[in-house]
Amino acid sequence: MEIPKSHPRYLSLTTREKLVKGVREGLAVLEGLIAHGRGEAFDYILGEKSHDFALEAERAAVALMKLAEHPVISVNGNAASLVAEELVELSKTLNAPLEVNIFHYSKERVEKIAKKLEEFGGTVYYRGDAVLEGIDHARRIVDSRGILKADVVLVPLEDGDRCEILKKHGKKVIAIDLNPLSRTARMADITIVNNITRAIPEMIKFAKEITKEEAKEVLRNYDNKTVLKRAIEAIREHLTKMAEDVMNA
Amino acid sequence: MEIPKSHPRYLSLTTREKLVKGVREGLAVLEGLIAHGRGEAFDYILGEKSHDFALEAERAAVALMKLAEHPVISVNGNAASLVAEELVELSKTLNAPLEVNIFHYSKERVEKIAKKLEEFGGTVYYRGDAVLEGIDHARRIVDSRGILKADVVLVPLEDGDRCEILKKHGKKVIAIDLNPLSRTARMADITIVNNITRAIPEMIKFAKEITKEEAKEVLRNYDNKTVLKRAIEAIREHLTKMAEDVMNA
Repeated sequence: MEIPKSHPRYLSLTTREKLVKGVREGLAVLEGLIAHGRGEAFDYILGEKSHDFALEAERAAVALMKLAEHPVISVNGNAASLVAEELVELSKTLNAPLEVNIFHYSKERVEKIAKKLEEFGGTVYYRGDAVLEGIDHARRIVDSRGILKADVVLVPLEDGDRCEILKKHGKKVIAIDLNPLSRTARMADITIVNNITRAIPEMIKFAKEITKEEAKEVLRNYDNKTVLKRAIEAIREHLTKMAEDVMNA
Repeated sequence: MEIPKSHPRYLSLTTREKLVKGVREGLAVLEGLIAHGRGEAFDYILGEKSHDFALEAERAAVALMKLAEHPVISVNGNAASLVAEELVELSKTLNAPLEVNIFHYSKERVEKIAKKLEEFGGTVYYRGDAVLEGIDHARRIVDSRGILKADVVLVPLEDGDRCEILKKHGKKVIAIDLNPLSRTARMADITIVNNITRAIPEMIKFAKEITKEEAKEVLRNYDNKTVLKRAIEAIREHLTKMAEDVMNA
């Protein structure tokens, strides 16, 4: 259905359509739409912009991947539906291969996501020939060339389980999560509290600029706990402002 | 796919499955899943419970419907997927017919939702033989026996447009919306900031208890602006508490 341009939430609704298209194409699943909605709500109470704490985390994330031996970018159905082309560009800029990893597993969907990334010229691992011990659903399946041997993994839009198991296997984890209170956000080494559609293009820019020397300096000064605290404070401040609008209306 | 019971968000995920089932049955649409996710996020930052301001609004809503001449309960795909049986019970208790009204319109979906409500013994209007002027999408279509002549309409899980047009046509609007900052929440006469799966059963209980005299008293003391303010404050307080947990972890 055509969304009328007069609708006050036109932009938000058309963005949703991107993910709905991803579902129709078999990249994302129905549950992924609900997860996207959760993210939308947090983006809304954050003011729908890239805050300074997000940019700081993005720069630190790029720095960590730049200095890593085997950085890998994990891609699920939502990420592929929203920013496939941008993820490929980030992957190339950082020399970090892409690996398909999905919660609601099907071989067909893995292949569709891989194909979508390959269409943009990405190097994609999806062999699923290894296992991360200690995780009891489909996402234990990984690629021996990718996440299994990775030292740093970027996991956009992931859940707490996934993050936890990667940590247990000694990997540094970078999460993109609009909920600064989530298990993922709290467990990651670097948490980017931002919309993935803004974060990835910003990370590409940082990846093109930053030198290895600068990367070391950035990481020396980075404190993830403070970043999370600032994110929560930003929500509280934005809510206070909005509450004033409600009361003065 | 089976969600493992060990998953920390097992309950939230199984609730999602209800709506996913609604989509598979043709009651809800993909966009409705995203909207549900937005609600989930607000429920989460509200602490996933019925606050005093929600109970107060529910009681006032029941009072308003009890005293109305033609109260109607508007039902969309998400509401039907989550609380069809409960909506029928509320409808019977308050003698307020149900009317199917959906944003992403199809005759087939209207009939499926009506059938689902009728299965539980509900009186359902869905003739679509009248129009609410001033609204430019499918939800302008209403039933001449229902919303067209209603003086009070309960619109669970609706958008701002819908609420606005009902107000313009002189109707009192009761909204159920987990986002206290939304246009719907701010435009409604009574705003229930609560999860529909908790709100409707609570409203049934109130509807069985309240007398007409009590209803008048409840409405005399009700102030929706204060209810919204308390909801926003509850979010801020809950976030502050959660932020402390994050920082002390």
